[in-house]
Amino acid sequence: SVDWDIAAAEKGGYDTFMAKEIHEQPQAVADTLRGRIDEAGQIVLDEVRMSDQDFRDIDKVFIVACGTSYHAGLVTKYAIEHWTRIPCEVELASEFRYRDPVLDRSTLVVAISQSGETMDTLMAVRHAKDQKARVLSISNTVGSTIPRESDAVLYTRAGIEVAVASTKAFLTQLAACYLVGLHLAQVRGIKYADEVSAILDELVAAPGKIAKVIENLDPVREMARESAGSDRVLFIGRHVGYPVALEGALKLKELAYLHAEGFAAGELKHGPISLIEAGTPVIAIVPSPRGRSLLHDKIISNIQEVKARGAKVIAVCEEGDKITAAHADLVIETPASPTLLAPLLTAVPLQEFAAELATALGRDIDQPRNLAKSVTVE
Amino acid sequence: SVDWDIAAAEKGGYDTFMAKEIHEQPQAVADTLRGRIDEAGQIVLDEVRMSDQDFRDIDKVFIVACGTSYHAGLVTKYAIEHWTRIPCEVELASEFRYRDPVLDRSTLVVAISQSGETMDTLMAVRHAKDQKARVLSISNTVGSTIPRESDAVLYTRAGIEVAVASTKAFLTQLAACYLVGLHLAQVRGIKYADEVSAILDELVAAPGKIAKVIENLDPVREMARESAGSDRVLFIGRHVGYPVALEGALKLKELAYLHAEGFAAGELKHGPISLIEAGTPVIAIVPSPRGRSLLHDKIISNIQEVKARGAKVIAVCEEGDKITAAHADLVIETPASPTLLAPLLTAVPLQEFAAELATALGRDIDQPRNLAKSVTVE
Repeated sequence: SVDWDIAAAEKGGYDTFMAKEIHEQPQAVADTLRGRIDEAGQIVLDEVRMSDQDFRDIDKVFIVACGTSYHAGLVTKYAIEHWTRIPCEVELASEFRYRDPVLDRSTLVVAISQSGETMDTLMAVRHAKDQKARVLSISNTVGSTIPRESDAVLYTRAGIEVAVASTKAFLTQLAACYLVGLHLAQVRGIKYADEVSAILDELVAAPGKIAKVIENLDPVREMARESAGSDRVLFIGRHVGYPVALEGALKLKELAYLHAEGFAAGELKHGPISLIEAGTPVIAIVPSPRGRSLLHDKIISNIQEVKARGAKVIAVCEEGDKITAAHADLVIETPASPTLLAPLLTAVPLQEFAAELATALGRDIDQPRNLAKSVTVE
Repeated sequence: SVDWDIAAAEKGGYDTFMAKEIHEQPQAVADTLRGRIDEAGQIVLDEVRMSDQDFRDIDKVFIVACGTSYHAGLVTKYAIEHWTRIPCEVELASEFRYRDPVLDRSTLVVAISQSGETMDTLMAVRHAKDQKARVLSISNTVGSTIPRESDAVLYTRAGIEVAVASTKAFLTQLAACYLVGLHLAQVRGIKYADEVSAILDELVAAPGKIAKVIENLDPVREMARESAGSDRVLFIGRHVGYPVALEGALKLKELAYLHAEGFAAGELKHGPISLIEAGTPVIAIVPSPRGRSLLHDKIISNIQEVKARGAKVIAVCEEGDKITAAHADLVIETPASPTLLAPLLTAVPLQEFAAELATALGRDIDQPRNLAKSVTVE
């Protein structure tokens, strides 16, 4: 029928918009990174209505966001604190206002919203401005309300995202957040132009690596179908792998309506490990063994803990990580990446896992029940 | 048999240690609060190896803890920031070290550990001390390792807790945390003695109110038995009700091995609301309508949202809250309390709910599978 043709054309030959958007991620991230550095080697934002001195005066960063954007914010905290040593807190936008955060003129509030219209985030931005804080927003929608009310803006260039469960918007938010962290470091004189451009080179290499992850999703799909009979799927991670675990769980929750929950791996033994029984799938996000070896060791211990209780461990790890391969039941390999940038790669197989598992359960992938694409009410 | 008699005697006539410990909470909290104020109206800690000037110099607080103690820490953040305006962050102890927190001599790290031997928390304490931060610990075990390595100590007086799932230790941690917050405010001259003693009077009134909650748990038990057939139970809260929701979910997870998950109420519509289907029990922690009316309004909106998707809403609210009673399917009333102190009351019915639901499922209440009472490995 004609209807079918139109739908298929819109989906670019994919079964779902989500599948299309997963595959668009390398391009979306590349677009978001393009042309961000000027002749002097300085990272440039899209709109800036505050001075370099205002940026230098910042001694505290709050990131406010909801849902998937909040997970991008959690990753960003690690990057900002590591690169700039400015203390950074991440807050759910819906909670931010009610807890009387300590804000002033030297506070930067980073608001992340795909639509730029997320009501909870907008209300947090307005509260921050009332308290004289500066606001920098990251949004996918030029001219939307949150960017309009911000002192500085960096746009993601994901294009229109149709599926309710965010994929390419998330990855481009990560890319934009890294740029903001580098910009902060640079304007404060903490990082030299060559140091920034070295990290930027790594960022620019990410789209090619994301494409490689996407080319190798068949085993992920198979694992997802095999897990479709499980009551629950748990996700564990440490450091930047922790927000990736939360995001992987959120995707599965949104799409499959399953008990999917992410944990800081070290927290398991303080309670949630009682959930594990024979065959419970546990997806572990493993950091590069070339990064902080202690972190890698700890997550291997966590894998051993859950395996001892019968879990079936699927590890997302760096290619060639033989130690993880020796301990996990199944591995999903991602290309080598600097520790802080790994979420750009490790998040991708979890998107596909959620979509495939939900498909096996007969769910509507692009339009999960009860959910709206952008939440413009509080 | 003799064994039975000994066990029954140890349990004081209760079926489980957990039941006994739930009922010991009014006494445990009263004990923890007793004798904390000196003749000059100053709150006194148990051990102090830092000067008043050291306390006055503090410009940042980190709370580090695991599991249930982490939830006590999340509540404390609201109290410390509201009373002292010192920025306060709460961190999972297992994550704290690996994210390079910005620490110095004017940072106070508050470590919360029932056993005083929690390895992740101890490692966080040592990391903090390496960075020259001050450490104040809250523990139930006199002379344990974490207090010994701290610059200041406040002991909870919960007595021995046998059940793996913490109840009275949690409530006494809350009481101790409030005292620490008041002490910080007082030593910095932000609160006068009469202001502190007014809040202290409210704290001292809490044990009587907790006893009243405990006397009225029969309806909670009935709701728990009725919910025992559900696949999942969700908990929502805002402000200090959010950590209470997390704690209620953790108790149920630990004891019943069920999908029990706590959410900031405003986050539901950003994803997790897809989990709700006809009959899904949702437990809402409702703040006092006499506190911040906006907060109360928002959670009523959230109750309406989940009810519109078919949820069965059990609301924990202040007695006489007619608006909540009109919207929820069932209500559990708690005595009137200042907004910040409400968790001392609202956490209690959730403990009983978890224990009764797990009993209905035939679980071992005092010794859930896979769990140890104190976690002395990382």
